[in-house]
Amino acid sequence: MSLKKDMIHLAGEAKKASRQLALLTKDEKNQCLLAMAAALELNRAAIQKANALDMEAGAQAGLTKAMLDRLKLDDKRISDMAHGLTEVAALPDPVGRILDDRTRPNGLRLQKVSTPIGVVVIIYESRPNVTADAASLCFKSGNATILRGGKEAIQSNQAIAEVMIAAARASLPQFPKNAIQVVPTTDRDAIKELLSLTHLVDLCMPRGGEGLIRAVTECSKVPVIKHYKGVCHVYVDAQADLTMAESIVMNAKAQRPAVCNAMETLLVDRPIATSFLNQIAPALAAKNVELRCDDPSIAILSLKSEDMKPALKLEAIKEQDFYTEYNDYIMNVRVVDGVDVAIEHIAQYGSQHSDSIVTRHDNTARKFQAEVDSAAVYWNASTRFTDGGEFGMGAEIGISTDKIGARGPMGLEELTTYKWLGTGTGQIRG
Amino acid sequence: MSLKKDMIHLAGEAKKASRQLALLTKDEKNQCLLAMAAALELNRAAIQKANALDMEAGAQAGLTKAMLDRLKLDDKRISDMAHGLTEVAALPDPVGRILDDRTRPNGLRLQKVSTPIGVVVIIYESRPNVTADAASLCFKSGNATILRGGKEAIQSNQAIAEVMIAAARASLPQFPKNAIQVVPTTDRDAIKELLSLTHLVDLCMPRGGEGLIRAVTECSKVPVIKHYKGVCHVYVDAQADLTMAESIVMNAKAQRPAVCNAMETLLVDRPIATSFLNQIAPALAAKNVELRCDDPSIAILSLKSEDMKPALKLEAIKEQDFYTEYNDYIMNVRVVDGVDVAIEHIAQYGSQHSDSIVTRHDNTARKFQAEVDSAAVYWNASTRFTDGGEFGMGAEIGISTDKIGARGPMGLEELTTYKWLGTGTGQIRG
Repeated sequence: MSLKKDMIHLAGEAKKASRQLALLTKDEKNQCLLAMAAALELNRAAIQKANALDMEAGAQAGLTKAMLDRLKLDDKRISDMAHGLTEVAALPDPVGRILDDRTRPNGLRLQKVSTPIGVVVIIYESRPNVTADAASLCFKSGNATILRGGKEAIQSNQAIAEVMIAAARASLPQFPKNAIQVVPTTDRDAIKELLSLTHLVDLCMPRGGEGLIRAVTECSKVPVIKHYKGVCHVYVDAQADLTMAESIVMNAKAQRPAVCNAMETLLVDRPIATSFLNQIAPALAAKNVELRCDDPSIAILSLKSEDMKPALKLEAIKEQDFYTEYNDYIMNVRVVDGVDVAIEHIAQYGSQHSDSIVTRHDNTARKFQAEVDSAAVYWNASTRFTDGGEFGMGAEIGISTDKIGARGPMGLEELTTYKWLGTGTGQIRG
Repeated sequence: MSLKKDMIHLAGEAKKASRQLALLTKDEKNQCLLAMAAALELNRAAIQKANALDMEAGAQAGLTKAMLDRLKLDDKRISDMAHGLTEVAALPDPVGRILDDRTRPNGLRLQKVSTPIGVVVIIYESRPNVTADAASLCFKSGNATILRGGKEAIQSNQAIAEVMIAAARASLPQFPKNAIQVVPTTDRDAIKELLSLTHLVDLCMPRGGEGLIRAVTECSKVPVIKHYKGVCHVYVDAQADLTMAESIVMNAKAQRPAVCNAMETLLVDRPIATSFLNQIAPALAAKNVELRCDDPSIAILSLKSEDMKPALKLEAIKEQDFYTEYNDYIMNVRVVDGVDVAIEHIAQYGSQHSDSIVTRHDNTARKFQAEVDSAAVYWNASTRFTDGGEFGMGAEIGISTDKIGARGPMGLEELTTYKWLGTGTGQIRG
């Protein structure tokens, strides 16, 4: 019961803070962000001291080297956080945009105006820099944030939040101190309690692996915006420019395979399957990409591979592979009969994240873009562009494959909702 | 297990239909809607025969006269349904609107385009006309609909849907027959099964009493857009035009008290409390409005009431009353010290639906509109305007007090989501 009470208190304070945040002007918010940025640099030692406690506890708990590396806040990472805050300060204010403005025949003026969402819970894993990134985007969009990072980073996260809050309050006395809160316990039940408070919490955004996101979504009573995974496709049509197709496929798979907008499955149209797969095989071999192939593609590539040094790494595909996000130099290959089969494949196995068609043929591209039900659908471009920065949104708080609320990359505007303001001269309804 | 299988099948068919629906042109959709409208009139007898079965079963089950009246499909109600469909046909297509269009420095063009949401479940009570209204709005916005009305209306609902589907298919062979489905069982567990299918169902919109909506929201794993209730406020400021204030208060409370945008609580600023309450007392008495008053207002109104015939119906308020949606000629009255207390009251007791301030003072109005966190916030106008028709949206499928997805009245545009279309000339990420 005490945990429940604590979470109600925490969320209640966030709700109160959210009402005060909604009143801050753009200049006041930016002033706070710049003060926070300066304070992160100035208080580097205090942050690193807290981080050392996390690192020590992590080493004792047997965290892997990779995990300890993610946890570490070296000088560069602290500077990057500070720089991120100054970038957020430079972005336009997402609150107060007039999205619609109509005057009804009775003279009543109705304006649809962007507003903060209210209280946003961010759940993430062990990178402590997310604390500053997420808090700054939520703050700039007028939302109160409740942050819940991985338990191994709790000292670091609290230190970062404390520095940011103290700096903002010193700069702007009316900065509400509960605008940014780190959940002060590592008890896993805290998340469940927090996400049951539908009258206090407006949104939850989990960031991390599919397991974390599924667990959060399963237990949450408040709306969750998320993507589970990125199983992205490139379909190379018979009418494709094969040089362009090779460049897009290699970029989508191998430029940075560990991210959600990387390609997992290549779909090749049957008429050009032999020529395209033979063409791209050396580039795949050079990048050490392992291929999980259907029967036609393995037949083509096995022949090719006999002549190649190093040989291609080929394996027969199992159906489960088509659902898999590898986050690695591994790729599925399937030969399909035209765009309709490609669209069906994506509907069956895709994650509604990012998919691309390579073709010279307008109608085929339009059909693909109309029928593929994903957040971003590309024609003659890499799937790797699904990203707030690449979309020109500035910083990104996440990517959504949901359809209610924001879809695709989420920047500042996607952290707002709207309300209708009605202004009259005594209008009543007849 | 069989119910689970049936619901998976039903939702799977809806998902397939949704992909076909997304390809219909505006003209094709409108042609279907007009054919459906004509068919409802032509098949009046068949619909009324099905309705008679529901009426008979309802009478045997002991439904009240009011409930039987809501259930009945007389000639006028069938004509109204048909007319509603022609009105939906006349509205602009909400799908394919370009919401954003930007070309990045690398030449990649990004268009944010409105698209259907996919599969929408509508849960409602016993009025069978909702079947035609909801199905037509979902269809026009390119969504497949799964309809679940009250069990007492199942024959009527199925008959209406069958007539609409047959007419659409006769008019347009590629109309997907599972675009509109009525859940064929009255088993209450069907809703729970359906709303667990997050990979097939995109949205649920429950319409009805607070109990129904809470039960649906509690069990749903898919996003729900809803409002629980409408506890709407009018705050009469010391700087109000009191004649305007009386007109707005009487309209908000008594023009149609059974609806969600009617006022439940009047907040009066202390400096004008005596004069305003004395002024409005005769109008309230004439409309037989029962008043639940705080101490200051009951003191004022008791004195006034001594001289009045008929006397005012006065009662001391209990705190719970401030949370109550009466849907009746009953109203809470509280005297407050200024706009800040009014805002606090609304934050505490309101339902984030519709609230209004009456004042001549710009800054006070702006403060109220900025700080009251409701879907619609009025200045010098009645709360009764929160309605798709009054907002100029055409037909309305519901009103949302949520912040993720649509907020306020929901028309056709609010039944869409968006996707990003990226069009390039071979762009890859560097």
